[in-house]
Amino acid sequence: MELEVAVAKISKWSVRESGDTLEMIERPHGGLSFVLVDGQHTGKGAKQISNLVARKVVALLADGVRDGAAARAAHDYLYTQYDGKVSAELHIVSIDLVSETIVISRNSHCAPIVGAGTTIRAINEPSDAIGVHRRMKPTITEIPLAPQTTVVVFTDGVLDAGVRSGDKFDVVQFVAEKLSDANVSAQQLADAILARANELDRGRANDDTSVLVIRVVPRQAGDAARRLSVRFPIE
Amino acid sequence: MELEVAVAKISKWSVRESGDTLEMIERPHGGLSFVLVDGQHTGKGAKQISNLVARKVVALLADGVRDGAAARAAHDYLYTQYDGKVSAELHIVSIDLVSETIVISRNSHCAPIVGAGTTIRAINEPSDAIGVHRRMKPTITEIPLAPQTTVVVFTDGVLDAGVRSGDKFDVVQFVAEKLSDANVSAQQLADAILARANELDRGRANDDTSVLVIRVVPRQAGDAARRLSVRFPIE
Repeated sequence: MELEVAVAKISKWSVRESGDTLEMIERPHGGLSFVLVDGQHTGKGAKQISNLVARKVVALLADGVRDGAAARAAHDYLYTQYDGKVSAELHIVSIDLVSETIVISRNSHCAPIVGAGTTIRAINEPSDAIGVHRRMKPTITEIPLAPQTTVVVFTDGVLDAGVRSGDKFDVVQFVAEKLSDANVSAQQLADAILARANELDRGRANDDTSVLVIRVVPRQAGDAARRLSVRFPIE
Repeated sequence: MELEVAVAKISKWSVRESGDTLEMIERPHGGLSFVLVDGQHTGKGAKQISNLVARKVVALLADGVRDGAAARAAHDYLYTQYDGKVSAELHIVSIDLVSETIVISRNSHCAPIVGAGTTIRAINEPSDAIGVHRRMKPTITEIPLAPQTTVVVFTDGVLDAGVRSGDKFDVVQFVAEKLSDANVSAQQLADAILARANELDRGRANDDTSVLVIRVVPRQAGDAARRLSVRFPIE
Protein backbone atom coordinates (compact mmCIF):
# COMPACT_ATOMS: atom_id res chain seq x y z
CA MET A 1 0.00 0.00 0.00
CA GLU A 2 0.97 3.59 -0.42
CA LEU A 3 -0.22 6.76 1.23
CA GLU A 4 -1.07 9.79 -0.83
CA VAL A 5 -1.66 13.13 0.84
CA ALA A 6 -2.60 16.27 -1.03
CA VAL A 7 -3.36 19.80 0.04
CA ALA A 8 -4.68 22.65 -2.08
CA LYS A 9 -5.38 26.08 -0.64
CA ILE A 10 -6.29 29.53 -1.85
CA SER A 11 -7.04 32.73 0.00
CA LYS A 12 -10.27 34.68 -0.12
CA TRP A 13 -10.70 36.66 -3.33
CA SER A 14 -8.68 39.90 -3.33
CA VAL A 15 -7.11 39.10 0.05
CA ARG A 16 -3.36 38.61 -0.25
CA GLU A 17 -2.83 36.32 2.69
CA SER A 18 -4.85 33.23 3.56
CA GLY A 19 -6.01 33.06 7.16
CA ASP A 20 -5.71 29.28 6.98
CA THR A 21 -2.46 27.62 8.02
CA LEU A 22 -1.46 24.09 7.12
CA GLU A 23 1.58 22.50 8.72
CA MET A 24 2.98 19.01 8.48
CA ILE A 25 5.19 17.33 11.08
CA GLU A 26 6.82 13.95 11.37
CA ARG A 27 5.53 12.02 14.41
CA PRO A 28 8.37 10.95 16.69
CA HIS A 29 7.11 7.35 16.75
CA GLY A 30 6.48 7.16 12.99
CA GLY A 31 3.99 8.64 10.61
CA LEU A 32 2.95 12.18 9.87
CA SER A 33 0.52 14.73 11.25
CA PHE A 34 -1.19 17.48 9.31
CA VAL A 35 -2.49 20.48 11.21
CA LEU A 36 -5.03 22.70 9.46
CA VAL A 37 -6.15 25.84 11.25
CA ASP A 38 -8.68 28.44 10.15
CA GLY A 39 -8.19 31.66 12.10
CA GLN A 40 -11.15 33.91 12.90
CA HIS A 41 -11.89 36.53 10.21
CA THR A 42 -9.60 36.89 7.17
CA GLY A 43 -6.29 38.44 6.15
CA LYS A 44 -3.30 39.24 8.31
CA GLY A 45 -5.07 39.01 11.67
CA ALA A 46 -6.54 35.60 10.87
CA LYS A 47 -3.17 34.44 9.63
CA GLN A 48 -1.48 35.42 12.88
CA ILE A 49 -4.05 33.46 14.87
CA SER A 50 -3.91 30.34 12.70
CA ASN A 51 -0.12 30.49 12.67
CA LEU A 52 0.02 30.76 16.44
CA VAL A 53 -2.30 27.79 16.93
CA ALA A 54 -0.63 25.62 14.26
CA ARG A 55 2.81 26.37 15.70
CA LYS A 56 1.72 25.40 19.19
CA VAL A 57 0.13 22.14 18.01
CA VAL A 58 3.09 21.20 15.80
CA ALA A 59 5.57 21.80 18.63
CA LEU A 60 3.54 19.59 20.98
CA LEU A 61 3.10 16.78 18.43
CA ALA A 62 6.83 16.87 17.68
CA ASP A 63 7.45 16.36 21.39
CA GLY A 64 5.31 13.21 21.27
CA VAL A 65 2.19 14.73 22.88
CA ARG A 66 -1.01 12.92 21.83
CA ASP A 67 -3.27 14.69 19.33
CA GLY A 68 -6.20 15.17 21.72
CA ALA A 69 -3.95 16.66 24.38
CA ALA A 70 -2.31 18.93 21.80
CA ALA A 71 -5.74 20.21 20.69
CA ARG A 72 -6.75 20.86 24.31
CA ALA A 73 -3.47 22.65 24.99
CA ALA A 74 -3.87 24.81 21.87
CA HIS A 75 -7.34 25.76 23.07
CA ASP A 76 -6.13 26.67 26.55
CA TYR A 77 -3.31 28.68 25.05
CA LEU A 78 -5.53 30.63 22.65
CA TYR A 79 -8.16 31.16 25.36
CA THR A 80 -5.52 32.49 27.75
CA GLN A 81 -3.73 34.68 25.19
CA TYR A 82 -6.88 36.39 23.92
CA ASP A 83 -9.07 36.17 26.99
CA GLY A 84 -11.64 33.95 25.24
CA LYS A 85 -12.31 36.55 22.52
CA VAL A 86 -10.67 34.91 19.51
CA SER A 87 -11.63 31.60 17.95
CA ALA A 88 -9.98 29.23 15.51
CA GLU A 89 -11.07 26.03 13.87
CA LEU A 90 -8.53 23.27 14.25
CA HIS A 91 -8.08 19.93 12.49
CA ILE A 92 -5.31 17.50 13.31
CA VAL A 93 -5.10 14.58 10.90
CA SER A 94 -2.51 12.00 11.86
CA ILE A 95 -1.24 9.01 9.98
CA ASP A 96 -0.19 6.85 12.88
CA LEU A 97 2.03 4.01 11.71
CA VAL A 98 2.09 2.49 15.22
CA SER A 99 -1.68 2.02 15.59
CA GLU A 100 -2.06 1.78 11.78
CA THR A 101 -4.88 4.29 11.78
CA ILE A 102 -5.73 7.73 10.55
CA VAL A 103 -6.82 9.85 13.50
CA ILE A 104 -8.89 12.97 12.90
CA SER A 105 -9.13 15.38 15.84
CA ARG A 106 -11.46 18.21 15.05
CA ASN A 107 -12.63 21.48 16.54
CA SER A 108 -14.54 22.75 13.57
CA HIS A 109 -18.05 22.89 12.20
CA CYS A 110 -16.75 21.52 8.86
CA ALA A 111 -17.52 17.80 8.93
CA PRO A 112 -14.70 15.71 7.48
CA ILE A 113 -15.59 13.07 4.92
CA VAL A 114 -14.24 9.55 5.32
CA GLY A 115 -14.69 6.68 2.97
CA ALA A 116 -13.86 3.04 2.38
CA GLY A 117 -13.87 2.44 -1.37
CA THR A 118 -16.92 4.21 -2.80
CA THR A 119 -18.87 4.15 0.50
CA ILE A 120 -18.43 7.52 2.13
CA ARG A 121 -19.86 9.41 5.08
CA ALA A 122 -19.50 12.76 6.77
CA ILE A 123 -18.36 12.77 10.39
CA ASN A 124 -20.88 15.31 11.54
CA GLU A 125 -21.01 15.06 15.29
CA PRO A 126 -21.19 18.58 16.72
CA SER A 127 -17.79 20.15 17.28
CA ASP A 128 -16.84 23.61 18.52
CA ALA A 129 -14.01 25.93 17.59
CA ILE A 130 -11.21 26.47 20.08
CA GLY A 131 -10.45 29.67 21.96
CA VAL A 132 -13.85 30.94 23.07
CA HIS A 133 -15.38 28.49 25.53
CA ARG A 134 -13.99 27.80 28.95
CA ARG A 135 -13.88 24.08 28.40
CA MET A 136 -13.41 22.37 25.11
CA LYS A 137 -12.61 18.95 23.78
CA PRO A 138 -11.97 17.80 20.24
CA THR A 139 -14.14 15.32 18.35
CA ILE A 140 -11.85 12.39 17.63
CA THR A 141 -12.37 9.79 14.90
CA GLU A 142 -10.02 6.90 14.27
CA ILE A 143 -10.15 4.87 11.09
CA PRO A 144 -7.99 1.93 10.03
CA LEU A 145 -5.30 2.39 7.38
CA ALA A 146 -6.96 0.06 4.89
CA PRO A 147 -6.70 0.01 1.09
CA GLN A 148 -9.07 2.50 -0.59
CA THR A 149 -9.51 4.55 2.57
CA THR A 150 -10.14 8.21 1.83
CA VAL A 151 -10.19 11.17 4.22
CA VAL A 152 -11.22 14.66 3.14
CA VAL A 153 -10.86 17.61 5.51
CA PHE A 154 -11.56 21.21 4.60
CA THR A 155 -12.19 24.69 5.94
CA ASP A 156 -15.38 26.70 5.62
CA GLY A 157 -14.37 28.21 2.28
CA VAL A 158 -15.43 24.83 0.91
CA LEU A 159 -18.42 24.33 3.19
CA ASP A 160 -19.91 27.73 2.40
CA ALA A 161 -18.97 27.89 -1.28
CA GLY A 162 -21.89 29.01 -3.38
CA VAL A 163 -23.97 30.13 -0.39
CA ARG A 164 -23.98 33.70 -1.68
CA SER A 165 -25.48 32.63 -4.99
CA GLY A 166 -27.86 30.11 -3.40
CA ASP A 167 -26.06 27.19 -5.06
CA LYS A 168 -24.65 25.38 -2.03
CA PHE A 169 -21.78 22.90 -2.40
CA ASP A 170 -22.84 19.31 -1.61
CA VAL A 171 -19.33 18.15 -0.83
CA VAL A 172 -20.30 14.59 0.18
CA GLN A 173 -22.15 14.05 -3.10
CA PHE A 174 -19.25 15.58 -5.06
CA VAL A 175 -16.64 13.38 -3.36
CA ALA A 176 -18.82 10.29 -3.89
CA GLU A 177 -18.96 11.02 -7.62
CA LYS A 178 -15.21 11.54 -7.85
CA LEU A 179 -14.51 8.31 -5.96
CA SER A 180 -16.53 6.29 -8.46
CA ASP A 181 -13.24 6.42 -10.36
CA ALA A 182 -11.10 4.23 -8.09
CA ASN A 183 -7.93 5.65 -9.67
CA VAL A 184 -8.54 9.25 -8.71
CA SER A 185 -5.45 10.51 -6.90
CA ALA A 186 -5.44 12.51 -3.68
CA GLN A 187 -4.14 15.51 -5.64
CA GLN A 188 -6.82 15.21 -8.30
CA LEU A 189 -9.53 14.99 -5.64
CA ALA A 190 -8.18 17.96 -3.66
CA ASP A 191 -7.83 20.05 -6.83
CA ALA A 192 -11.33 19.10 -8.01
CA ILE A 193 -12.91 20.11 -4.68
CA LEU A 194 -11.05 23.43 -4.67
CA ALA A 195 -11.98 24.11 -8.29
CA ARG A 196 -15.65 23.27 -7.69
CA ALA A 197 -15.80 25.50 -4.60
CA ASN A 198 -14.24 28.33 -6.57
CA GLU A 199 -16.65 27.80 -9.45
CA LEU A 200 -19.65 27.98 -7.10
CA ASP A 201 -18.21 31.27 -5.83
CA ARG A 202 -18.04 32.48 -9.45
CA GLY A 203 -14.23 32.46 -9.39
CA ARG A 204 -14.10 34.83 -6.41
CA ALA A 205 -13.57 32.70 -3.33
CA ASN A 206 -15.85 33.95 -0.57
CA ASP A 207 -13.45 32.83 2.16
CA ASP A 208 -10.02 31.29 2.67
CA THR A 209 -10.37 27.79 1.26
CA SER A 210 -8.22 24.76 2.10
CA VAL A 211 -8.65 21.08 1.28
CA LEU A 212 -6.65 18.17 2.66
CA VAL A 213 -7.10 14.72 1.12
CA ILE A 214 -5.55 11.44 2.25
CA ARG A 215 -5.89 8.25 0.24
CA VAL A 216 -4.56 4.75 0.75
CA VAL A 217 -3.80 3.40 -2.72
CA PRO A 218 -1.99 0.41 -4.24
CA ARG A 219 1.77 0.92 -4.28
CA GLN A 220 3.00 2.60 -7.45
CA ALA A 221 6.65 3.54 -7.08
CA GLY A 222 9.18 0.77 -7.44
CA ASP A 223 11.34 2.08 -4.61
CA ALA A 224 10.59 2.61 -0.92
CA ALA A 225 11.18 6.37 -1.15
CA ARG A 226 9.14 9.00 0.64
CA ARG A 227 8.26 11.89 -1.58
CA LEU A 228 7.14 15.43 -0.89
CA SER A 229 6.26 18.05 -3.42
CA VAL A 230 5.20 21.67 -3.00
CA ARG A 231 4.10 24.15 -5.63
CA PHE A 232 3.02 27.72 -5.29
CA PRO A 233 2.86 30.84 -7.39
CA ILE A 234 5.15 33.77 -6.62
CA GLU A 235 5.08 37.27 -8.09
CA MET B 1 6.62 32.49 -11.75
CA GLU B 2 5.96 29.43 -9.70
CA LEU B 3 8.01 27.63 -7.10
CA GLU B 4 8.43 23.89 -7.24
CA VAL B 5 9.92 22.04 -4.31
CA ALA B 6 10.50 18.30 -4.27
CA VAL B 7 11.97 15.94 -1.74
CA ALA B 8 12.79 12.25 -2.18
CA LYS B 9 14.31 10.17 0.58
CA ILE B 10 15.12 6.56 1.32
CA SER B 11 16.83 4.89 4.25
CA LYS B 12 20.02 2.88 4.12
CA TRP B 13 19.56 -0.60 2.66
CA SER B 14 18.02 -3.03 5.19
CA VAL B 15 17.62 -0.30 7.81
CA ARG B 16 13.98 0.35 8.61
CA GLU B 17 14.24 3.93 9.72
CA SER B 18 16.06 6.74 7.94
CA GLY B 19 18.36 8.79 10.16
CA ASP B 20 17.61 11.82 8.00
CA THR B 21 14.75 14.11 8.96
CA LEU B 22 13.10 16.62 6.65
CA GLU B 23 10.66 19.15 8.00
CA MET B 24 8.88 22.03 6.36
CA ILE B 25 7.53 25.10 8.12
CA GLU B 26 5.75 28.23 7.01
CA ARG B 27 7.77 31.35 7.75
CA PRO B 28 5.81 33.83 9.85
CA HIS B 29 6.59 36.70 7.45
CA GLY B 30 5.86 34.68 4.31
CA GLY B 31 7.50 31.83 2.47
CA LEU B 32 8.63 28.41 3.56
CA SER B 33 11.65 26.83 5.19
CA PHE B 34 12.89 23.29 4.67
CA VAL B 35 15.09 21.75 7.34
CA LEU B 36 17.10 18.67 6.39
CA VAL B 37 19.11 16.98 9.12
CA ASP B 38 21.37 13.96 8.88
CA GLY B 39 21.95 12.47 12.34
CA GLN B 40 25.24 10.74 13.18
CA HIS B 41 25.28 6.98 12.37
CA THR B 42 22.11 5.25 11.07
CA GLY B 43 18.87 3.78 12.33
CA LYS B 44 16.91 4.68 15.44
CA GLY B 45 19.72 6.55 17.22
CA ALA B 46 20.42 8.72 14.19
CA LYS B 47 16.70 9.36 13.78
CA GLN B 48 16.37 10.57 17.36
CA ILE B 49 19.23 13.01 16.86
CA SER B 50 18.01 14.34 13.53
CA ASN B 51 14.48 14.62 14.89
CA LEU B 52 15.69 16.56 17.93
CA VAL B 53 17.68 19.00 15.81
CA ALA B 54 14.96 19.45 13.17
CA ARG B 55 12.34 20.04 15.86
CA LYS B 56 14.46 22.69 17.56
CA VAL B 57 15.17 24.50 14.28
CA VAL B 58 11.54 24.35 13.12
CA ALA B 59 10.28 25.74 16.44
CA LEU B 60 12.74 28.65 16.27
CA LEU B 61 11.95 29.46 12.62
CA ALA B 62 8.23 29.37 13.39
CA ASP B 63 8.87 31.95 16.12
CA GLY B 64 10.48 34.23 13.51
CA VAL B 65 14.11 33.56 14.49
CA ARG B 66 16.53 34.08 11.59
CA ASP B 67 17.97 30.97 9.94
CA GLY B 68 21.57 31.60 10.96
CA ALA B 69 20.56 32.13 14.58
CA ALA B 70 18.40 28.99 14.50
CA ALA B 71 21.35 26.94 13.20
CA ARG B 72 23.61 28.33 15.92
CA ALA B 73 21.01 27.61 18.58
CA ALA B 74 20.54 24.05 17.31
CA HIS B 75 24.29 23.56 17.54
CA ASP B 76 24.48 24.91 21.10
CA TYR B 77 21.55 22.71 22.09
CA LEU B 78 22.99 19.53 20.60
CA TYR B 79 26.44 20.31 22.02
CA THR B 80 24.96 20.86 25.47
CA GLN B 81 22.66 17.83 25.41
CA TYR B 82 25.35 15.37 24.31
CA ASP B 83 28.43 17.04 25.76
CA GLY B 84 29.97 17.58 22.30
CA LYS B 85 29.93 13.86 21.49
CA VAL B 86 27.17 13.68 18.87
CA SER B 87 27.16 15.42 15.51
CA ALA B 88 24.52 16.17 12.91
CA GLU B 89 24.62 17.76 9.49
CA LEU B 90 22.09 20.51 9.11
CA HIS B 91 20.68 22.31 6.07
CA ILE B 92 18.10 25.07 6.28
CA VAL B 93 16.74 26.13 2.90
CA SER B 94 14.37 29.06 3.06
CA ILE B 95 12.22 30.59 0.40
CA ASP B 96 11.98 34.10 1.72
CA LEU B 97 9.20 36.03 0.02
CA VAL B 98 10.18 39.25 1.81
CA SER B 99 13.77 39.42 0.54
CA GLU B 100 12.78 37.44 -2.61
CA THR B 101 15.68 35.09 -2.17
CA ILE B 102 16.45 31.48 -1.45
CA VAL B 103 18.71 31.28 1.60
CA ILE B 104 20.79 28.16 2.19
CA SER B 105 22.30 27.82 5.67
CA ARG B 106 24.53 24.79 5.86
CA ASN B 107 26.48 22.82 8.42
CA SER B 108 27.39 19.89 6.23
CA HIS B 109 30.19 18.62 4.06
CA CYS B 110 27.68 18.01 1.24
CA ALA B 111 28.01 21.01 -1.05
CA PRO B 112 24.63 22.23 -2.35
CA ILE B 113 24.31 22.85 -6.06
CA VAL B 114 22.78 26.09 -7.28
CA GLY B 115 22.06 27.09 -10.82
CA ALA B 116 20.70 29.81 -13.03
CA GLY B 117 19.36 28.19 -16.19
CA THR B 118 21.91 25.62 -17.31
CA THR B 119 24.85 27.30 -15.54
CA ILE B 120 25.37 25.52 -12.26
CA ARG B 121 27.93 25.45 -9.48
CA ALA B 122 28.54 23.71 -6.20
CA ILE B 123 28.74 25.87 -3.08
CA ASN B 124 31.78 24.15 -1.68
CA GLU B 125 33.15 26.46 0.97
CA PRO B 126 34.22 24.37 3.95
CA SER B 127 31.41 23.77 6.44
CA ASP B 128 31.33 21.71 9.63
CA ALA B 129 28.63 19.60 11.22
CA ILE B 130 26.93 20.86 14.37
CA GLY B 131 27.24 19.38 17.84
CA VAL B 132 30.92 18.59 18.21
CA HIS B 133 32.94 21.79 18.15
CA ARG B 134 32.75 24.45 20.80
CA ARG B 135 32.03 27.21 18.34
CA MET B 136 30.28 26.79 15.09
CA LYS B 137 28.68 28.94 12.43
CA PRO B 138 26.73 27.98 9.34
CA THR B 139 27.82 28.71 5.79
CA ILE B 140 25.12 30.97 4.38
CA THR B 141 24.36 31.50 0.69
CA GLU B 142 21.63 33.77 -0.59
CA ILE B 143 20.44 33.61 -4.18
CA PRO B 144 17.74 35.67 -5.87
CA LEU B 145 14.37 34.10 -6.68
CA ALA B 146 14.80 34.45 -10.45
CA PRO B 147 13.25 32.37 -13.25
CA GLN B 148 15.15 29.12 -13.93
CA THR B 149 16.88 29.18 -10.54
CA THR B 150 17.62 25.69 -9.24
CA VAL B 151 18.82 24.61 -5.80
CA VAL B 152 19.80 21.02 -5.00
CA VAL B 153 20.60 19.98 -1.44
CA PHE B 154 21.36 16.43 -0.33
CA THR B 155 22.78 14.26 2.42
CA ASP B 156 25.88 12.07 2.19
CA GLY B 157 23.95 9.07 0.90
CA VAL B 158 24.08 10.97 -2.42
CA LEU B 159 27.59 12.35 -2.00
CA ASP B 160 29.10 8.93 -1.21
CA ALA B 161 26.97 6.84 -3.56
CA GLY B 162 29.13 4.41 -5.53
CA VAL B 163 32.20 4.97 -3.36
CA ARG B 164 32.18 1.31 -2.33
CA SER B 165 32.31 0.17 -5.92
CA GLY B 166 34.78 2.89 -6.98
CA ASP B 167 32.21 4.51 -9.24
CA LYS B 168 31.75 7.86 -7.50
CA PHE B 169 28.67 9.99 -8.17
CA ASP B 170 29.50 13.26 -9.97
CA VAL B 171 26.36 15.04 -8.81
CA VAL B 172 27.22 18.41 -10.39
CA GLN B 173 27.74 16.83 -13.79
CA PHE B 174 24.55 14.78 -13.43
CA VAL B 175 22.45 17.82 -12.48
CA ALA B 176 23.96 19.82 -15.37
CA GLU B 177 22.90 17.10 -17.81
CA LYS B 178 19.37 16.95 -16.40
CA LEU B 179 19.02 20.74 -16.55
CA SER B 180 19.82 20.77 -20.26
CA ASP B 181 16.10 19.96 -20.48
CA ALA B 182 14.66 23.29 -19.27
CA ASN B 183 11.32 21.59 -18.57
CA VAL B 184 12.62 19.07 -16.04
CA SER B 185 10.49 19.41 -12.90
CA ALA B 186 11.82 19.57 -9.35
CA GLN B 187 10.26 16.17 -8.68
CA GLN B 188 11.82 14.61 -11.78
CA LEU B 189 15.22 15.99 -10.84
CA ALA B 190 15.00 14.82 -7.21
CA ASP B 191 13.81 11.36 -8.30
CA ALA B 192 16.55 11.09 -10.92
CA ILE B 193 19.28 11.97 -8.41
CA LEU B 194 17.93 9.46 -5.88
CA ALA B 195 17.62 6.75 -8.55
CA ARG B 196 21.16 7.38 -9.83
CA ALA B 197 22.62 7.27 -6.31
CA ASN B 198 20.79 4.01 -5.66
CA GLU B 199 21.98 2.58 -8.96
CA LEU B 200 25.62 3.41 -8.11
CA ASP B 201 25.08 1.59 -4.80
CA ARG B 202 23.83 -1.42 -6.79
CA GLY B 203 20.28 -0.97 -5.44
CA ARG B 204 21.45 -1.20 -1.83
CA ALA B 205 21.78 2.33 -0.52
CA ASN B 206 25.00 2.62 1.45
CA ASP B 207 23.57 5.33 3.71
CA ASP B 208 20.36 7.27 4.40
CA THR B 209 19.81 9.29 1.25
CA SER B 210 17.77 12.47 0.92
CA VAL B 211 17.47 14.98 -1.90
CA LEU B 212 15.76 18.38 -1.82
CA VAL B 213 15.26 20.30 -5.07
CA ILE B 214 13.84 23.78 -5.53
CA ARG B 215 13.11 25.24 -8.95
CA VAL B 216 11.66 28.54 -10.08
CA VAL B 217 9.61 27.78 -13.19
CA PRO B 218 7.07 29.57 -15.38
CA ARG B 219 3.60 29.55 -13.83
CA GLN B 220 1.56 26.53 -14.86
CA ALA B 221 -1.61 26.37 -12.78
CA GLY B 222 -4.41 28.70 -13.75
CA ASP B 223 -5.30 29.47 -10.15
CA ALA B 224 -3.28 31.03 -7.32
CA ALA B 225 -3.49 27.88 -5.17
CA ARG B 226 -0.67 26.52 -3.05
CA ARG B 227 -0.30 22.78 -3.40
CA LEU B 228 1.37 20.16 -1.26
CA SER B 229 1.61 16.49 -2.01
CA VAL B 230 3.14 13.64 -0.02
CA ARG B 231 3.55 9.99 -1.00
CA PHE B 232 5.07 7.15 0.90
CA PRO B 233 4.83 3.38 1.04
CA ILE B 234 3.27 1.67 4.05
CA GLU B 235 3.23 -2.02 4.91
